[in-house]
Amino acid sequence: MAKAPVLTPQAEDFPRWYQDIISKAELADNGPVRGTMVIRPYGYSIWEQMQAEVDRRIKLAGARNAYFPLFIPESYLTREAEHVEGFSPELAVVTVAGGKELEEPVVVRPTSETVIGEFMAKWVQSYRDLPLLLNQWANVVRWELRPRVFLRTSEFLWQEGHTAHVSEADGRAYAVRILHEVYESFMRDVLAMPVVVGRKTAKERFAGATNTMTCEAMMGDGKALQMGTSHELGQNFARAFDIAFQSAEGQQELAWTTSWGVSTRMVGGLIMCHGDDAGLRIPPRLAPVQVVVMAVREDDAVIDRCRSLVDELLAAGIRVESDLRTETSAGRRATDWELKGVPVRLELGPRDLAEGAVTMIDRIAGTKDAVPLDGIAIRLHAALDAAQTALLAQATARREERTAEVTTIEEAVEAAATGWARIPWRAVGVEGEAALAAQAITVRCLVMPDGSLPPADDTPGAVAIVARAY
Amino acid sequence: MAKAPVLTPQAEDFPRWYQDIISKAELADNGPVRGTMVIRPYGYSIWEQMQAEVDRRIKLAGARNAYFPLFIPESYLTREAEHVEGFSPELAVVTVAGGKELEEPVVVRPTSETVIGEFMAKWVQSYRDLPLLLNQWANVVRWELRPRVFLRTSEFLWQEGHTAHVSEADGRAYAVRILHEVYESFMRDVLAMPVVVGRKTAKERFAGATNTMTCEAMMGDGKALQMGTSHELGQNFARAFDIAFQSAEGQQELAWTTSWGVSTRMVGGLIMCHGDDAGLRIPPRLAPVQVVVMAVREDDAVIDRCRSLVDELLAAGIRVESDLRTETSAGRRATDWELKGVPVRLELGPRDLAEGAVTMIDRIAGTKDAVPLDGIAIRLHAALDAAQTALLAQATARREERTAEVTTIEEAVEAAATGWARIPWRAVGVEGEAALAAQAITVRCLVMPDGSLPPADDTPGAVAIVARAY
Repeated sequence: MAKAPVLTPQAEDFPRWYQDIISKAELADNGPVRGTMVIRPYGYSIWEQMQAEVDRRIKLAGARNAYFPLFIPESYLTREAEHVEGFSPELAVVTVAGGKELEEPVVVRPTSETVIGEFMAKWVQSYRDLPLLLNQWANVVRWELRPRVFLRTSEFLWQEGHTAHVSEADGRAYAVRILHEVYESFMRDVLAMPVVVGRKTAKERFAGATNTMTCEAMMGDGKALQMGTSHELGQNFARAFDIAFQSAEGQQELAWTTSWGVSTRMVGGLIMCHGDDAGLRIPPRLAPVQVVVMAVREDDAVIDRCRSLVDELLAAGIRVESDLRTETSAGRRATDWELKGVPVRLELGPRDLAEGAVTMIDRIAGTKDAVPLDGIAIRLHAALDAAQTALLAQATARREERTAEVTTIEEAVEAAATGWARIPWRAVGVEGEAALAAQAITVRCLVMPDGSLPPADDTPGAVAIVARAY
Repeated sequence: MAKAPVLTPQAEDFPRWYQDIISKAELADNGPVRGTMVIRPYGYSIWEQMQAEVDRRIKLAGARNAYFPLFIPESYLTREAEHVEGFSPELAVVTVAGGKELEEPVVVRPTSETVIGEFMAKWVQSYRDLPLLLNQWANVVRWELRPRVFLRTSEFLWQEGHTAHVSEADGRAYAVRILHEVYESFMRDVLAMPVVVGRKTAKERFAGATNTMTCEAMMGDGKALQMGTSHELGQNFARAFDIAFQSAEGQQELAWTTSWGVSTRMVGGLIMCHGDDAGLRIPPRLAPVQVVVMAVREDDAVIDRCRSLVDELLAAGIRVESDLRTETSAGRRATDWELKGVPVRLELGPRDLAEGAVTMIDRIAGTKDAVPLDGIAIRLHAALDAAQTALLAQATARREERTAEVTTIEEAVEAAATGWARIPWRAVGVEGEAALAAQAITVRCLVMPDGSLPPADDTPGAVAIVARAY
């Protein structure tokens, strides 16, 4: 008799599989207020790993963390026309505070360009103060009508970088640097997600930006997910907030600003990129728990050896946890660790111990072997490296298999039923984009044939990546 | 001619000195919405160091980080009578979201006992699920009528721990453990602040707690600052949110919960505990920059040697920054680094270089010496250790000098003009506490003569620490 599956199979109902995994791997719950979420400890430990890796890269790119207020005067939002138009429908507004009606309502930040612009204007006087490179880790609120945990929530956690520069070229270079050195590098090398880096069309641009660049990933069902964006804001916010400086030549000039962010949405992307019917599969470089050491049954010698093994692996720089809950069956615990996507499970019982061995189950290779306890750390490092490589290779292979080169809108629509289409942007254009939108298909980004970023909206030869998206 | 002081001298106007240092050391600005603050990069780097140290200790105590929503249904707050009464006057309320009036207004969390209680009730079934040990790093909002940067702001950053236990004794032991192993340890060993750990009187208790314990520090002007609190919540929130479990004996029982927190207020405490008329003095174990290497003037050999020295010190595990801004005078830059409280400044000029030496200025010892570049890292480690010890010793000496042992309310009032008073709690009582409050003096906490925590509100022999406070 076949076991009942722990999760709804992906092939049967992908969205249901996603909901199942969120709940069964104890990643998150829906919050009591519409569209909010509770991130449970295991889900949050994944986010903490993401934060640490992204934060390190942001600091290497020279930006410094700061913190700006949650509450923004409503009047700030209205200073940049496109920005307010883009965000108005999603705002949460505080009208009562300290027991009184407020004279000016305050908005809960949907993003912080406006309030940070106000302070950049105060801090920047001379070209010597530039570039000004800031970042903040914060919560933001955008009221969602169709929320989905991690992917679209009314409140989410993110980092938002905000920088000011002396010239358009300098701002652009920095926005591109963040895109590649922080986001693409993190996603490919840590998340094992082979994102496509491209330029958004004018229609998909951030409200107030002159150019939005994006990292797009393919999920297990062939849909696209926007994993992070980096924006050139031109002088739009500098003009609205008067971020001006005296140039080296003694002229008053407006600064050029950028902004860029990634959010808890990446947790959703990670799940849908690597997960399978048995649960999550977390790339070892990210995994909060890389190896779990499981005592198969209650036995003093086994428990002692599990403990010393954990110490040995910790000393070898492996993120390891022990599972000594022998009151629960080994089978049930094994299922739980597979659900949680821990890359390697070591099962230790009296027989293994007698043989000086341990049973090593590799979540990603799908193998189960008796291996000697002697030299286990070296073997684990090799297995973890191999798992990291395998996940990236699998995701890359899927993306290539499921991306069709097409030349017409009709073909693009067909391809988008199961994956992505690559189509010359000149064959789409603004009208083609509208026709696709009518079928819930979007141009995810534009790329040059060699994979580079198109320098303008209408660069000849640009290719559009077309897909359904989360 | 004496130089004009960079800061208002402490002895002249302590609050003005505090405002000056916040601004001149570039720690923070007032936000545009009343009572909010902008934490600037240097101020935020101090907070990041605090977070890292506290987070490590929280994890060692077995709690796991999670994240609960910013928005709480108004109805949740009203479920625990004392809690809602305590927080109602400070709430910020969202009444409009997504372009519509909300059916039920949502409150911006002033603290998260209620929403976390709701989820603990969902997650806890059996005694096996206990203790449930959670923590979150988050922003909270409490509308302030008399805001002061870092000390009292309408929005602040903090961690809030929330735990549930099988018994009163277990909850109490954990609340006490956090108080000592996380808070007191961090404050004494890292912040170099000799806090007094005690029990709050019933009047000063957290709204909804059965017992509030606190860490109180003496500031440079003799006032007290509450640096952190740990609460036993009894079964108050378990009853309100139905956090129930099946005991080992098969009975349905209510859990016992705790909560505990420290916030960005600690940054204010650090400033007012160690700062002097030249600026901040940051204990080396906390300092984001422990050593600054300053090129005194433009000179290729000097700049090169500064760079290699920075690399050498980084490799020796010292948090070091270089200052090669030779277009600004060395004197002005030296003043800035003193303002920022960096423990050690190394000044390197052509003459030093010729002698194989560097000028070492110790911010805390107040010394300036030519020291050989050879073996400098070892010398720095010793200087940093000595500075850490000296700051704790100075703060301890001040606390002892400025604390008077008294026996009457009148004497306590007199002592509180310049410092703290220790007075038998039986000589104060509820009426004495009210009389003190009329003069803006409070009982900061109760301690036993041996320094231990009084187990009850009316434990015989308890001593009250009485002071003015921030």
